Amino acid sequence: MKLRLGMIGGGQGAFIGAVHRIAARIDDEYELVCGAFSSNAEKSKASGVLLGLSADRVYTSYTELIEKEKQLPEDQRVQVISIVTPNHVHFDPAKAALENGFHVVLDKPMTFSLAEAKELEKVVAASGKLFCLTHTYTGYPMVKEAKQLIKAGKLGAIRKVYVEYPQGWLSSFLEGDDNKQASWRTDPGKSGIAGAMGDIGTHAFNLAEYVTGLEVTQICADINVVVPGRKLDDDGAALLKFNNGASGVLTATQIAAGEENNVKIRVYGEKGGLEWHQSDANSLTLMYTDKPMEVWRTGGGYTSSFAQHNTRTPAGHPEGYLEAFANLYRNFALTVKAGLEGKEATAEEQDYPGIQEGVRGMAFIENVIASGKSDKKWTEFTI
Amino acid sequence: MKLRLGMIGGGQGAFIGAVHRIAARIDDEYELVCGAFSSNAEKSKASGVLLGLSADRVYTSYTELIEKEKQLPEDQRVQVISIVTPNHVHFDPAKAALENGFHVVLDKPMTFSLAEAKELEKVVAASGKLFCLTHTYTGYPMVKEAKQLIKAGKLGAIRKVYVEYPQGWLSSFLEGDDNKQASWRTDPGKSGIAGAMGDIGTHAFNLAEYVTGLEVTQICADINVVVPGRKLDDDGAALLKFNNGASGVLTATQIAAGEENNVKIRVYGEKGGLEWHQSDANSLTLMYTDKPMEVWRTGGGYTSSFAQHNTRTPAGHPEGYLEAFANLYRNFALTVKAGLEGKEATAEEQDYPGIQEGVRGMAFIENVIASGKSDKKWTEFTI
Amino acid sequence: MKLRLGMIGGGQGAFIGAVHRIAARIDDEYELVCGAFSSNAEKSKASGVLLGLSADRVYTSYTELIEKEKQLPEDQRVQVISIVTPNHVHFDPAKAALENGFHVVLDKPMTFSLAEAKELEKVVAASGKLFCLTHTYTGYPMVKEAKQLIKAGKLGAIRKVYVEYPQGWLSSFLEGDDNKQASWRTDPGKSGIAGAMGDIGTHAFNLAEYVTGLEVTQICADINVVVPGRKLDDDGAALLKFNNGASGVLTATQIAAGEENNVKIRVYGEKGGLEWHQSDANSLTLMYTDKPMEVWRTGGGYTSSFAQHNTRTPAGHPEGYLEAFANLYRNFALTVKAGLEGKEATAEEQDYPGIQEGVRGMAFIENVIASGKSDKKWTEFTI
Amino acid sequence: MKLRLGMIGGGQGAFIGAVHRIAARIDDEYELVCGAFSSNAEKSKASGVLLGLSADRVYTSYTELIEKEKQLPEDQRVQVISIVTPNHVHFDPAKAALENGFHVVLDKPMTFSLAEAKELEKVVAASGKLFCLTHTYTGYPMVKEAKQLIKAGKLGAIRKVYVEYPQGWLSSFLEGDDNKQASWRTDPGKSGIAGAMGDIGTHAFNLAEYVTGLEVTQICADINVVVPGRKLDDDGAALLKFNNGASGVLTATQIAAGEENNVKIRVYGEKGGLEWHQSDANSLTLMYTDKPMEVWRTGGGYTSSFAQHNTRTPAGHPEGYLEAFANLYRNFALTVKAGLEGKEATAEEQDYPGIQEGVRGMAFIENVIASGKSDKKWTEFTI
Repeated sequence: MKLRLGMIGGGQGAFIGAVHRIAARIDDEYELVCGAFSSNAEKSKASGVLLGLSADRVYTSYTELIEKEKQLPEDQRVQVISIVTPNHVHFDPAKAALENGFHVVLDKPMTFSLAEAKELEKVVAASGKLFCLTHTYTGYPMVKEAKQLIKAGKLGAIRKVYVEYPQGWLSSFLEGDDNKQASWRTDPGKSGIAGAMGDIGTHAFNLAEYVTGLEVTQICADINVVVPGRKLDDDGAALLKFNNGASGVLTATQIAAGEENNVKIRVYGEKGGLEWHQSDANSLTLMYTDKPMEVWRTGGGYTSSFAQHNTRTPAGHPEGYLEAFANLYRNFALTVKAGLEGKEATAEEQDYPGIQEGVRGMAFIENVIASGKSDKKWTEFTI
Repeated sequence: MKLRLGMIGGGQGAFIGAVHRIAARIDDEYELVCGAFSSNAEKSKASGVLLGLSADRVYTSYTELIEKEKQLPEDQRVQVISIVTPNHVHFDPAKAALENGFHVVLDKPMTFSLAEAKELEKVVAASGKLFCLTHTYTGYPMVKEAKQLIKAGKLGAIRKVYVEYPQGWLSSFLEGDDNKQASWRTDPGKSGIAGAMGDIGTHAFNLAEYVTGLEVTQICADINVVVPGRKLDDDGAALLKFNNGASGVLTATQIAAGEENNVKIRVYGEKGGLEWHQSDANSLTLMYTDKPMEVWRTGGGYTSSFAQHNTRTPAGHPEGYLEAFANLYRNFALTVKAGLEGKEATAEEQDYPGIQEGVRGMAFIENVIASGKSDKKWTEFTI
Repeated sequence: MKLRLGMIGGGQGAFIGAVHRIAARIDDEYELVCGAFSSNAEKSKASGVLLGLSADRVYTSYTELIEKEKQLPEDQRVQVISIVTPNHVHFDPAKAALENGFHVVLDKPMTFSLAEAKELEKVVAASGKLFCLTHTYTGYPMVKEAKQLIKAGKLGAIRKVYVEYPQGWLSSFLEGDDNKQASWRTDPGKSGIAGAMGDIGTHAFNLAEYVTGLEVTQICADINVVVPGRKLDDDGAALLKFNNGASGVLTATQIAAGEENNVKIRVYGEKGGLEWHQSDANSLTLMYTDKPMEVWRTGGGYTSSFAQHNTRTPAGHPEGYLEAFANLYRNFALTVKAGLEGKEATAEEQDYPGIQEGVRGMAFIENVIASGKSDKKWTEFTI
Repeated sequence: MKLRLGMIGGGQGAFIGAVHRIAARIDDEYELVCGAFSSNAEKSKASGVLLGLSADRVYTSYTELIEKEKQLPEDQRVQVISIVTPNHVHFDPAKAALENGFHVVLDKPMTFSLAEAKELEKVVAASGKLFCLTHTYTGYPMVKEAKQLIKAGKLGAIRKVYVEYPQGWLSSFLEGDDNKQASWRTDPGKSGIAGAMGDIGTHAFNLAEYVTGLEVTQICADINVVVPGRKLDDDGAALLKFNNGASGVLTATQIAAGEENNVKIRVYGEKGGLEWHQSDANSLTLMYTDKPMEVWRTGGGYTSSFAQHNTRTPAGHPEGYLEAFANLYRNFALTVKAGLEGKEATAEEQDYPGIQEGVRGMAFIENVIASGKSDKKWTEFTI
């Protein structure tokens, strides 16, 4: 049985919408049944046709989508709604979808502001519906393995965390050209108060908290607008303190010319350390003071149930970004289905980012930007 | 418009059938409409149900599938049939499908014997239908880039080719246990005259000919059965001569304990060399005698139209094995569709392995095994 | 003609003294003629004997060494004195050596305090003697290449610098055992006000300023004592501002369990970026927004005169840490010899760290520790 | 106490002579006291002066060197003679040196022919002197570790060996220019019957036998002269059989354009495999079918006494080619000294290549060239 999926945003030319659709298709857990792909009616229709939808289920607004779908018989009606619009159009459709009985998948960062995030948290709770936030990198099998190994005490108490997300694509003033991605991501009216920190800093932040199981408590940030004329930060670094006393460093930049998307995390504890980076996503390096380094690999028979549950191919056949993304969709589907069947989803199935991660991500944005403007060294991480 | 896809083989528990289905889904060019997933009727039905097929289009044999589908109206009838059975059940269903008007996707090695392959070549020609053989590794963007760079003369005339496919999974007598994959792949009645040489040696051979654009003309092979009790080769190496005078070395083994699937090719010409290997599939290394090495990357704006056509995500978001596989399916679909629309598919779209590659692959198997048994050093590569 | 070399410190069991001696031997520019290897007379003698010195030129103190050597005929007298004692015994012997007419090689960090460093700067100037500080990593050919490429504008104006020095060897309370290296390096009476920041933070700082040609102007540091009972910092991170407006991040830690000595630098400018790390010391990666990455290699015929001058073996025969160290000694020798011959040493020969680097390194220590204690975010980098 | 070292060959402009001298200096076990650096008297003198030798111990021929040195008092006379001439001038000076009571270090390949090698074996035996052949790559700590791990059964019985030595420097007809290295190495009158197979094929062969502890028993070779006009092979590949039934592949080429000197070995046994390559010389990768890969590192506290004995610096400070070479010199010196002191050298000290390795290396050359010319597949490895 496939879940009936609808999409808000993601019309022709959009980047992340296409990624969401591939991710939803890979494991055959969803069937795309409707969408409001663009506020431009023609564009929305054209996008829907290309996707093979019947014309009557292609809408021009999320409100129309929700209203019309609600009128459909329960066994035809959309069940899960994916929202892949720019940040300023996250909260309203998510709230509407949840309040009208639909499960929601939402792209990150979760909302336009922390206030919206906290409001959405209440909406989710009140709705009783399920909610998934697409922090892709936590979908990688070896990222899940890292979390499980740390949880099992393999490294001892955690002392140091380095997390980084280097990009170079905004090294020049792309938003001056007709670059759709650059334009909205550097526009405070669409992205919110942060640029790089919102777009990729939140990924780094989420990765650090997910892998370590710790929470950031203090931030000291250096936030920069490097490219002249840009309206939002395109570079930043933050010193971090965690709730167990560990410290860390987070960097996120979009002006590291030549860098692609090599998001990377390193964590060190009393007994050893580990490293994962996206450019070798199927390897997880463990290191020790007294024995050889180990390289754990996606597909290895020795990996945890969490890693194996999120692996499709035999070791050595690399799984990539789309499979990591698909893991979020698949786990969310399995959890939704378990609910429909009145069962409890397994821990592995429930291991996808949700509303808590979204609230903390938005708090990260507000705190890191506040710290960047402050003369004081440490800013308390408040929500 | 999606192409209607049927599948022969690939029931529950099969490895490669699931891979084919994911590959067909990723780009949304196909809709699975029917299947004969197993010769066991119950198992076939169960598999079909899990895949969401209507029960009346789940068959228990390829003959039934072809017969029944032919009776359906043209706009409902399956258009492309994927055959994912063990080698001994390739020729008959492929021939039947083609002769009854269906396009065919066939897993490698193409047939049980070279004789069958040559016969199938005639069948394809006579049918006027399209045919795709799933040599996955040629679907990687950076493998395509390698081919294009060599074709453009970037390395000068080719002098040396090293290609290897190391696996370790058959290091022990797995077929003695109840291991389905190991059992049929080491069974001469199902795999044919070759084990490792057929299963992965053909991939290496195909990769070498695809990337260089050359043809092997002579072989000198050392073929081994390493694990006691095994019935087919699990290891081999071959010295090669190519039609331009270049020489090469091909190795394929399933007893390199600890190796996963790091298929790798290195090619050297008068002016430089290149290297690609699956464990870093999105990089292509070019090296020169007089300037720095270069690392070309999937998604790079500087890559060829062939690489870019086969890339979905921005550089640095790794695409893997399933995307490479999907590229075969997508290109085949685009070529089929162009035909349906009376258009010529582009060179990029037509760049998928076909019947010629299949015949040469089967010739490789027969020649390499013959060479392995010969006391003479060089065996002419004959078809 | 070999320069006559003397050594202060570096008796049996010392680590860095042995490294200095190998470095001095590799290129045959020095002959070790005398030493005061230990304040323990017997140990000093024993060390000298093992090194093949004549007994009358093995001394028990640096004062004795200087006094006695001065009495020797000019053509027998030591010419260059290497000082390889712990930090608290740097200034006095260096001052005495310089003021008595000897050239000096000194291990880093230069002195016990910034005040001493500034005093030593005056001593050097007044003495007219030459001075070398052994910041080893700037001796690597590919680090020199990085500097030259940036100087030539290959990356455009520099915007971002990441430099890191991760170690794990002080993850436990080694100084509680009888570990000589750990004991003095964590002892404020011997190391000064800083532990990790002095021992390896100065290397990272020096590397950043050397490669970029920029100067740090502001620091915001998080300085930690992680291992209970330790008296000096064993971990730290600092946000940096440079004199051209670029920003950076420096991390240095000795509690990253499992890390060896993979010092690493990444620099990004308007047009591209570069990366060098010690674990692949003979490679320098250049990356661009619009063309393939390049890997420049030690020994490449295309490298600069600076890289080639510091390379001994054909490309692909790795040169390592000892060769990098030897490059400092060799360049210093060539510069000393040029002076003896009344010639100007070449730019390549003069490219070794000296008194300026030492003063700035000590200023780094004082500023980074002050910042670590401050509630203010930014500390001006003052000397 | 330093051993008194003399050198035959290695005058100004020679490559390998300078490498030998650095190797001999690094560990301070030798003092260069005399040499016959060139058959050109002036060049020999000039070379000697540059090396700081007294003029009366710089000779113009090896016969003069041996004759004159024999007349010196025993405590001044040279003790170890290094011979670094082209291959055709190996046997005579080595024989003369041994027969006159000197220990010998000889560059590889050992002699001009196998006949000479077998003769030299007798000379060594009769002389009672010690003999070292400089197969550099066996001097790397991680190569030694590989041997020890295999010896200890870590991989189980060995089944497959891949060894390769790819170079690109002879991709063009360098010997047509005034390139000294290229000229003698491609000249049958100086190199013998083999080019690439003698120069680097012997290294690969030696590495395979050293690491595995096995002996090659059969060869099937493809030997090529790729560059037009060249007189000796510049490329080759050989299928191998070992005395325990294992098989292997050896490749050595000098026309792999863009390759440096990345000699590499991979060995697989019943339980796992290992890989070492020179471009990451301080790492040794172990892989298993049932647990994570391990990366063993030079300097790791967990490494064998053989690895640790051949390591100078803490882990992470890379040791390279010159240190590997120095390990041969150092171990030979320690063995010579033990003899002088009437003691037995340790197993670690005696672990350097000697006359047996030299005879087998020359047999490899003759067998592989014979196989290359043969129509028969397998050539017995005969000595």
